[in-house]
Amino acid sequence: MASRFFLQADRPVVFDPGKMSKVDLFRGERMFVGLNCFEPGQTQHSHVHAGADKFYLILSGRALMVVGEETGEAGPGTVVWAPAEVPHGVVEALERTVMLVAIAPPPR
Amino acid sequence: MASRFFLQADRPVVFDPGKMSKVDLFRGERMFVGLNCFEPGQTQHSHVHAGADKFYLILSGRALMVVGEETGEAGPGTVVWAPAEVPHGVVEALERTVMLVAIAPPPR
Repeated sequence: MASRFFLQADRPVVFDPGKMSKVDLFRGERMFVGLNCFEPGQTQHSHVHAGADKFYLILSGRALMVVGEETGEAGPGTVVWAPAEVPHGVVEALERTVMLVAIAPPPR
Repeated sequence: MASRFFLQADRPVVFDPGKMSKVDLFRGERMFVGLNCFEPGQTQHSHVHAGADKFYLILSGRALMVVGEETGEAGPGTVVWAPAEVPHGVVEALERTVMLVAIAPPPR
């Protein structure tokens, strides 16, 4: 049965052999929630969201990530906080990795 | 080593035998991230956030949850979207349950 409010995060996962892929889950006026999906070795170049707070929660897999001056290995259950104006990215996925991502306010 | 940006979501979990408990993880100007922790049978009364979008991601356990007119059983990996002005709550935790919660903008 279709639901407006309930969703299983592992259902819409999609991998792209060419580059990390994105899946939209929910979008409100003040927050966006989605997935970032990586094959081993894929990256997300370091970038900044002006005026938007963001976090990642690793659902499965393992990745080397960077926020500001910190680099860390993130695995299932790791929350990675990337506040507005602080550069962040995924240096490299060490396994097939799925991350939930939330951004407030939502990207245009 | 202390980190400003990386955190393991299962480390700060705290249960209260008297009622569901809350743990702050990260707070920015535009978004708050925390945990809600329930013992079996504990509830979160239905409530509304005026002007704030929210979602839950169930990290472990199982709970009966309500958003608007929908009631659903949520387990590991379920994302429950509770947009601004829509009443939502936890009818009952069916097991010991931990949920990540994000709210934008943050509660005062």
